[in-house]
Amino acid sequence: MVKIGILGYGNLGKGVEAAIKKNADMELVAVYTRRDPATLTINTEGVPVKSTADLDTGKEALDVLIICGGSATDLPEMTPKYAAMYNVIDSFDTHAKVPVHFANVDKASKEAGKIGIISCGWDPGMFSISRVYAHAVLPDGKDYTFWGKGVSQGHSDAVRRIDGVLDARQYTVPVPEALDRVRNGEDPELTTREKHTRECFVVAEEGADLARIENEIKTMPNYFSDYDTTVHFITMDEMKANHSGLPHGGSVIYSGESSDGTKHVIEYSLKLDSNPEFTGSVLVAYARAAARLNAEGACGAKTVFDIAPAYLSAQSGDELRAHLL
Amino acid sequence: MVKIGILGYGNLGKGVEAAIKKNADMELVAVYTRRDPATLTINTEGVPVKSTADLDTGKEALDVLIICGGSATDLPEMTPKYAAMYNVIDSFDTHAKVPVHFANVDKASKEAGKIGIISCGWDPGMFSISRVYAHAVLPDGKDYTFWGKGVSQGHSDAVRRIDGVLDARQYTVPVPEALDRVRNGEDPELTTREKHTRECFVVAEEGADLARIENEIKTMPNYFSDYDTTVHFITMDEMKANHSGLPHGGSVIYSGESSDGTKHVIEYSLKLDSNPEFTGSVLVAYARAAARLNAEGACGAKTVFDIAPAYLSAQSGDELRAHLL
Repeated sequence: MVKIGILGYGNLGKGVEAAIKKNADMELVAVYTRRDPATLTINTEGVPVKSTADLDTGKEALDVLIICGGSATDLPEMTPKYAAMYNVIDSFDTHAKVPVHFANVDKASKEAGKIGIISCGWDPGMFSISRVYAHAVLPDGKDYTFWGKGVSQGHSDAVRRIDGVLDARQYTVPVPEALDRVRNGEDPELTTREKHTRECFVVAEEGADLARIENEIKTMPNYFSDYDTTVHFITMDEMKANHSGLPHGGSVIYSGESSDGTKHVIEYSLKLDSNPEFTGSVLVAYARAAARLNAEGACGAKTVFDIAPAYLSAQSGDELRAHLL
Repeated sequence: MVKIGILGYGNLGKGVEAAIKKNADMELVAVYTRRDPATLTINTEGVPVKSTADLDTGKEALDVLIICGGSATDLPEMTPKYAAMYNVIDSFDTHAKVPVHFANVDKASKEAGKIGIISCGWDPGMFSISRVYAHAVLPDGKDYTFWGKGVSQGHSDAVRRIDGVLDARQYTVPVPEALDRVRNGEDPELTTREKHTRECFVVAEEGADLARIENEIKTMPNYFSDYDTTVHFITMDEMKANHSGLPHGGSVIYSGESSDGTKHVIEYSLKLDSNPEFTGSVLVAYARAAARLNAEGACGAKTVFDIAPAYLSAQSGDELRAHLL
C-alpha cells in the first residue's frame, strides 16, 4: 500500500480523497490542516485529521504527501518546505514562476533524498504531456489549447467581488469556429477574443443596478475586457440547481507536417464532470510514481515530462504490454 | 547528432527518412537493404545504400538502427538479431506475440548493453500511451479504440488477392453513432459490426463477374464477414487520382469515474495524411530516446510505456518546462 497524506482539505483535497478510494493500492493515512483539526470532518471514516504541526516534525509515516494548496501563496512556500521531509506532489500552475519553484523543490528534495513532483494535474499536467509528445513527434508544427466549456474559479471569484453581486459562476467557452479551423489543420492565427467567449451567471442583490454590474464585468481588465462576454442574471435557486458543479475540460490540438504538404492533426481532449476530482485523480496516479521512483533511489524535482507512463499504473509491465499496448 | 540507420526501404522506411529531415539533431547515415544496394535509389542525396551484410558485421557507426520490416516474419527475427549489436527500434504490431518478442529483444539487448524499443508507432504506440495514462488516472473506467477513416493495407491486400481484381483500396470507417455514444460517456457494449464499417474501392478486370467479386469480399472470414461492407467498382484512373495516399487515424476514448456518478471522458485522436510518415515520425522521436537512454547506461527492451516524454524531445528540461508545461 502507498501511504498518502493530504495537506489542505478544499475542493482539491476532497478530489484527492475521492481518487484514493478508487485505487486499491493507495491508503489515506491522514488529512493535515492549518485549521483546528477538531473543526474539520472528512469524507473517509477512520482517517484522522491532524495539524500541520504534526507534519512539521518530519516524522509522519507517509510515502507521499499531496499538497493541495493555492499557487499564489501556499505552494511556493509549502512544497519546498515539505520536500525537505517527504516525497511531495503539487499542482502549481503559475506558469511564469515554474523555473523558480522547480529549482526550490529540486534543492530541498535532493538534499532530503526525496522526490518532489510539481505542476501536476491536467493543465499543467495531462495537457502538457500531450504538447510534448506532439512537438517531439512532429517538430514542424504548432499547438493550440482550448479550455472549456467549464467553470473558471478565478473568474467566478472576480465577478463575486463586484458590488451588488451575491454569487456568480463564470464559464469559459471555446469558439466553435476556431476549434473547427484548428481541427482542419488551417493553422490560423487567433486572437484571445477569437478563441474563447466567457459566459457569466450572476445572482444580484435585490434592487442592484444590473446594467452597472454587467458593464463592470464586461470591461474588467485581464479577466473579461479581451473577450466577448455574456451576462445572465439568475436567482439563487437557479444557481444552486443548475450551476453547483465544477465541470471543465478542453483540448490540446496540434497540427504539424512530416514532409512538405503532408499534414497530421493530433488532439487530446477532456470532458470533466468535476475539475477538482479529475485533478485529484491525476495527483494520485503521480503519487504512485513518486513512491516508486523514490523506492528505486531517485530524488529531486520532477514534472510529468520526466516520468514514464508505466510508473503511474498499478499494473505490472507484463500486464500493461499484454492488455494496453 | 544522432546517427540513424534505416533497415528496409518500403513505405515505412521512406516515412522514417522523411521524418529525419524534420529533426535538426538527427542524421541519416545509411539505408540497409536485403536487395542489391545498386538497385535502390533513395530520396536523400549523399547517403549510401548498403547491404545487410554490412550491418551484420556489427561495426556500422550507428547510434540507433530503425528496423522497418513486417511483423509477420521480418521483425521477430531481425529485431533480436540486431539488438545484439545496435540500439534498435521497431514497430512490431502482432499483439499476441508481444511477450515473446519483448523477451527475445530484452535478452539480446541486455547482453549487448544496448536499448531495444519495440512496438513503436501510433497503434501500438501513441494510442497505447493514451490508454495507459487514462487507466492509471481513472482506474474505474473503460477504453474504446476506433480506427479510421483510413486505409488498411492488410485488408486492401486481401481484396487484391481475389480473382479478377486488378487493384483495391479498403477504408476502415468508424460508425458515427458508436463514436457519439462513447463520447457521451454511455459506456455501450459494442459488437465488431457496430464499431466500424468497411468501404472498398475495386478495379476489376474487364469482363469480370462483379457480383461474384463483391460477394467474395463481403463474406471473407476474419477480414470482412463480421462487418457491414460497401464495395465500389472504379476505374484504374479513378484509383490513381483519388486513392493513392495512405491516410489513417482514429481515436482512443476513455470514459471513467472518479467517484460514483462523477464521470470524465478522455479522448486522444489522430487525423493522418500519411500513416507511414506519421509512424516514421514516432519512430524517429523514440530513436532519440533510445540513444539518450543508452548514453545514460540503460539497456534492455523497452516499450513506449517505459520512456518518459522528455526523452523524446530535442528540447532541454528547462525549455520544456518554460514553453510546454
